Amino acid sequence: MMEALVLEKAGLLRIRDIDIVEKMGPQDVRIAIHTVGICGSDVHYYERGAIGPYVVREPMVLGHEASGTVIEVGREVATLKPGDRVCMEPGVPDPNSRASRLGIYNLDPAVRFWATPPIHGCLRPTVAHPAAFTFKLPDNVSYAEGAMVEPLAVGMHAVNKAHIRPGDTAVVLGLGAIGMLACAAAIAGGCGKVVVVDMVQPKLDLAARLGPVVPVNLKERAPAEVVMEETDGWGADIIFEASGNAESAETVFDLLCPAGRVVFIGCPARPIAFDVIKAQAKEARIETIFRYAHVYPRALSLMSAGKIDVKPFITDRYEFKDGIEAFDYACNMKPTSVKVQIVMPEAG
Amino acid sequence: MMEALVLEKAGLLRIRDIDIVEKMGPQDVRIAIHTVGICGSDVHYYERGAIGPYVVREPMVLGHEASGTVIEVGREVATLKPGDRVCMEPGVPDPNSRASRLGIYNLDPAVRFWATPPIHGCLRPTVAHPAAFTFKLPDNVSYAEGAMVEPLAVGMHAVNKAHIRPGDTAVVLGLGAIGMLACAAAIAGGCGKVVVVDMVQPKLDLAARLGPVVPVNLKERAPAEVVMEETDGWGADIIFEASGNAESAETVFDLLCPAGRVVFIGCPARPIAFDVIKAQAKEARIETIFRYAHVYPRALSLMSAGKIDVKPFITDRYEFKDGIEAFDYACNMKPTSVKVQIVMPEAG
Amino acid sequence: MMEALVLEKAGLLRIRDIDIVEKMGPQDVRIAIHTVGICGSDVHYYERGAIGPYVVREPMVLGHEASGTVIEVGREVATLKPGDRVCMEPGVPDPNSRASRLGIYNLDPAVRFWATPPIHGCLRPTVAHPAAFTFKLPDNVSYAEGAMVEPLAVGMHAVNKAHIRPGDTAVVLGLGAIGMLACAAAIAGGCGKVVVVDMVQPKLDLAARLGPVVPVNLKERAPAEVVMEETDGWGADIIFEASGNAESAETVFDLLCPAGRVVFIGCPARPIAFDVIKAQAKEARIETIFRYAHVYPRALSLMSAGKIDVKPFITDRYEFKDGIEAFDYACNMKPTSVKVQIVMPEAG
Amino acid sequence: MMEALVLEKAGLLRIRDIDIVEKMGPQDVRIAIHTVGICGSDVHYYERGAIGPYVVREPMVLGHEASGTVIEVGREVATLKPGDRVCMEPGVPDPNSRASRLGIYNLDPAVRFWATPPIHGCLRPTVAHPAAFTFKLPDNVSYAEGAMVEPLAVGMHAVNKAHIRPGDTAVVLGLGAIGMLACAAAIAGGCGKVVVVDMVQPKLDLAARLGPVVPVNLKERAPAEVVMEETDGWGADIIFEASGNAESAETVFDLLCPAGRVVFIGCPARPIAFDVIKAQAKEARIETIFRYAHVYPRALSLMSAGKIDVKPFITDRYEFKDGIEAFDYACNMKPTSVKVQIVMPEAG
Repeated sequence: MMEALVLEKAGLLRIRDIDIVEKMGPQDVRIAIHTVGICGSDVHYYERGAIGPYVVREPMVLGHEASGTVIEVGREVATLKPGDRVCMEPGVPDPNSRASRLGIYNLDPAVRFWATPPIHGCLRPTVAHPAAFTFKLPDNVSYAEGAMVEPLAVGMHAVNKAHIRPGDTAVVLGLGAIGMLACAAAIAGGCGKVVVVDMVQPKLDLAARLGPVVPVNLKERAPAEVVMEETDGWGADIIFEASGNAESAETVFDLLCPAGRVVFIGCPARPIAFDVIKAQAKEARIETIFRYAHVYPRALSLMSAGKIDVKPFITDRYEFKDGIEAFDYACNMKPTSVKVQIVMPEAG
Repeated sequence: MMEALVLEKAGLLRIRDIDIVEKMGPQDVRIAIHTVGICGSDVHYYERGAIGPYVVREPMVLGHEASGTVIEVGREVATLKPGDRVCMEPGVPDPNSRASRLGIYNLDPAVRFWATPPIHGCLRPTVAHPAAFTFKLPDNVSYAEGAMVEPLAVGMHAVNKAHIRPGDTAVVLGLGAIGMLACAAAIAGGCGKVVVVDMVQPKLDLAARLGPVVPVNLKERAPAEVVMEETDGWGADIIFEASGNAESAETVFDLLCPAGRVVFIGCPARPIAFDVIKAQAKEARIETIFRYAHVYPRALSLMSAGKIDVKPFITDRYEFKDGIEAFDYACNMKPTSVKVQIVMPEAG
Repeated sequence: MMEALVLEKAGLLRIRDIDIVEKMGPQDVRIAIHTVGICGSDVHYYERGAIGPYVVREPMVLGHEASGTVIEVGREVATLKPGDRVCMEPGVPDPNSRASRLGIYNLDPAVRFWATPPIHGCLRPTVAHPAAFTFKLPDNVSYAEGAMVEPLAVGMHAVNKAHIRPGDTAVVLGLGAIGMLACAAAIAGGCGKVVVVDMVQPKLDLAARLGPVVPVNLKERAPAEVVMEETDGWGADIIFEASGNAESAETVFDLLCPAGRVVFIGCPARPIAFDVIKAQAKEARIETIFRYAHVYPRALSLMSAGKIDVKPFITDRYEFKDGIEAFDYACNMKPTSVKVQIVMPEAG
Repeated sequence: MMEALVLEKAGLLRIRDIDIVEKMGPQDVRIAIHTVGICGSDVHYYERGAIGPYVVREPMVLGHEASGTVIEVGREVATLKPGDRVCMEPGVPDPNSRASRLGIYNLDPAVRFWATPPIHGCLRPTVAHPAAFTFKLPDNVSYAEGAMVEPLAVGMHAVNKAHIRPGDTAVVLGLGAIGMLACAAAIAGGCGKVVVVDMVQPKLDLAARLGPVVPVNLKERAPAEVVMEETDGWGADIIFEASGNAESAETVFDLLCPAGRVVFIGCPARPIAFDVIKAQAKEARIETIFRYAHVYPRALSLMSAGKIDVKPFITDRYEFKDGIEAFDYACNMKPTSVKVQIVMPEAG
């Protein structure tokens, strides 16, 4: 029995004891959870009880953006030891699946992902987890930052798919947490300029402090106009669609340069209208991403190097006992908020 | 003055004298045209007088799929000589444009492309053309085959974008001339199996003779069902959308494997509904193409090697004097016809 | 206890009973071996007792190029059943290693590879093997051909690394079994022309029958001269170095085109002299390969499709009881021999 | 007649009038030279009169790393106007060559490159140059920095070939000007850590200030030991060989991770010993570079963005009248010097 933040059903959260059996295998570690960020998907399950085909049918612990401390290691684990400060990939694939063998383990249909029904999340005192998906935090990366690696990994995976050439100009549509982190990752990953587009001025102001960023408030200017100005009429090399807004996603080819690349990060609620002929005129390449793979050590390297600073995005922190309040705030954040985190009781 | 097949306006073709000045530069060659294939775009201009923004406002010579014989060479031309049998890329870019410098000359907005208004096509006795875009036919490639290189180049460009790994399984949706040639190019380019989908049985029968091809008649079976059967439920590595049909184009992700690639060759008349989330679940990569670049010598190499045989697709040949009849047939071909060609009067 | 072909020590082979314990895991299958090809490495262990750091210190069963029949399946195996005709990847990695997770399982230092000391090979009646590394033979692929997939996989892996663009011209230096199979794979993989170089005329004659192949007998002509002739002075797009001969490997840049690719398949006994400046003048890319990964299903697809025919390379077959004779012949083959295989006693 | 810094023959420089005819074409601009950096190749011509096959047979103006001001534009030039501050690519290809058409114009054998015999360099008051190879300096990039774009372009081209994935760990062997700039480019291009290796402590100290850099003094530690420590025994993702020292170049595979990439930037005076088997064990990919292509605008973008700061490398500046003194210093620099520049007399 352990005390966890449990989604009983849509709209009903409780902090209560729950019975979770955690079998430790020889290649697993046990981790005392320290910090857990609240993701849009957590909020979505809380509000609606489902995301597409994933429906919460039994009470489920929420949370998948976590850092913590190793407290026990399986007998075959050589890379970690008790006391190590770590963060964890929340999705664990079958290592023998076809997708895993190919190196695309994020696409393994057998992945067990925290807080995706029926798998419990990590808003609880401890988890058992494979050492292979548990990553040591560098000394200069805090637990709070460690819990940001998960959403950052999405942005970095998008950047990997974009195959940035140093000096590229990118556009980020939508400055939610993921768009913000994709912007930071794009700069760290070699972009010489990033045009960011949103309607919320405080988010644009925050992004503008990340580096060579050109903010565009949709209410004031047409993104295509700014992008063409900034690129001498050539268009941007890369468009990251991170708004998840269908109307926004339908504009990407207007912003793009010949032979440019588009990465769809956001998940529009309806199919978007795709003008194939417009894309063909530029020989656009479109990449789509599903979570991430092989990104955690790279994210930690860039954070430790000071090339990606996630601290400005950690805007709100709550103690575990106030976790339901944290969720209620996350459902209806102020425009200056980016990421809400929950700190576990035993955390130092 | 030369006698040419002229589109006077939508619906009206004439074979008549027209005044075309052809300046020969030092790096140009003059070619006596031998064979010209009729492309869907020629038919479209004939029937409608326009394709999207390209409107026929003045009488225009049609035709851009051509082979011929060099009859004169500019003083700086070292690679060709009179008497050489050749085929020609119909689009000539500005070599100093940004796109050309990058090697993506097909995307140069300054391209002058035969039979795209206001540029005259090549259904006329001679053309002057840059030697750099004129390619010698191997001895075992006929003029008729040489005039097939242009549509084959579209299929090969699609294959290049697909980055086939030898042994890939591909799907070709739509067996018009381009789909048929894309299928042949996919096989020559390394695919171990190609599932082809159409509703016209004779086209499926023809494709089935190209190699390791699995024909699917849309009226009889669901393509996704066949593709999953043929790939043990994994999906095809590559989908070539060559039907240009929006409904067909909307099915591509149902056929695809995780981390697979889709190439949009066809040009659907309306924006298609693009289910981003479905694409993301497979991390699909989507490529779009605009004509081709750097493909002609490669196409000729594969034809000369016997790896691509275009002869079965050359189903109908007309003399130039019957050119209007050829066009009328091309507007309404029998299902067994794939490509209609016109042979010039002086052709040997 | 099972009867196997055992290398007792350098120079001494015996067919005798040996005690091998084969634990079947839930994801393993047991296979009755049908055919085993003799590889250059088997011969090398026989003659020298070692390859580099790999030293035969205990009696070891030889053989790793195998096909057979499934006779038992673990309880979690869904893809295979008793009676299935199969071939096997001889190297089994740790699925949880860093290299495996990245999809480059062939580079996992923990790989256990048949007939690489101290791991026993498969010249014995049965083996237990992971289902994930066991591949069903298509109906039109024989056991003899199935045992050719292993060396073909090396050639195909080289072809994968070369990133052939359809219509490329390649050169294969050295026509041992691997060079021969790399040539076949290069043709199947999209090359429009392959120049093959060797000093043994029967091997050149055999290669010349594989497709668009230009044979060059080193004793008669300089390869660079032929390559430049065949490519209008531009050079070949890809060089496959398969001779393992240092002198040969030192010539690769003379054959290459600007921005061309070299793949080192062969293993020269001494470091080769690498003229960096010569490579730089062409911006050569050099790839090196270690065995293969993810290739077996692709090889079988191309064999089943009739795009790669390995039958001409299976030149010599022996019964298991004559296995030592087979090895002695393999040590000193006639120039017309390519691959020697051994057929197990129970094989149908 | 214009006053230039002329290499009369090996060892003899003069500042004197020379007769250079500069024809302006319609797509050319005329530039008043402001700053010219001295490259190792300039020094090499001064000291030896030749680099490999390039022999100075007639007096030749030196210098190819230049910035300046546009003073005249051809009638077809739309992108530049008099008064624009610019830097120039010193190599001008034939736009109609096969290499240029492919986008690899740096490999065009017809390239005319400043200060490569018999082409005059730019240590003179004015040059006529194609607008397409002339790039406007952003407002926050000085002339001195503009003259650094040329050597930076070499480093960036190396980084492009390395295909950095964000968070990669790289090694730079050799901290001459190019190695230093490659290090800066690698950090800007996404590396999370760069291990730099040299024997000159002040150069290591300078590099250590560029970002997440681990300096290794060859006299004190074995690079392989440090690299393995910094990468948990996995090896570095990328090795940039920038020392041009053959012994150094022979160590690259000891530093590399499985499936890693090596880029040879330096030009070792002798062929290096290449242990193919050692490279194969890691499936190393080796890239070689020749100058650069398509890099100038990207370099300027990163400089303007503050992601690459070249000012610390501009250690010594001379007036044109002291140009010979500048060259003599460049032949024998203090270890704290990186780049020597010459400022033209009319420069503001």
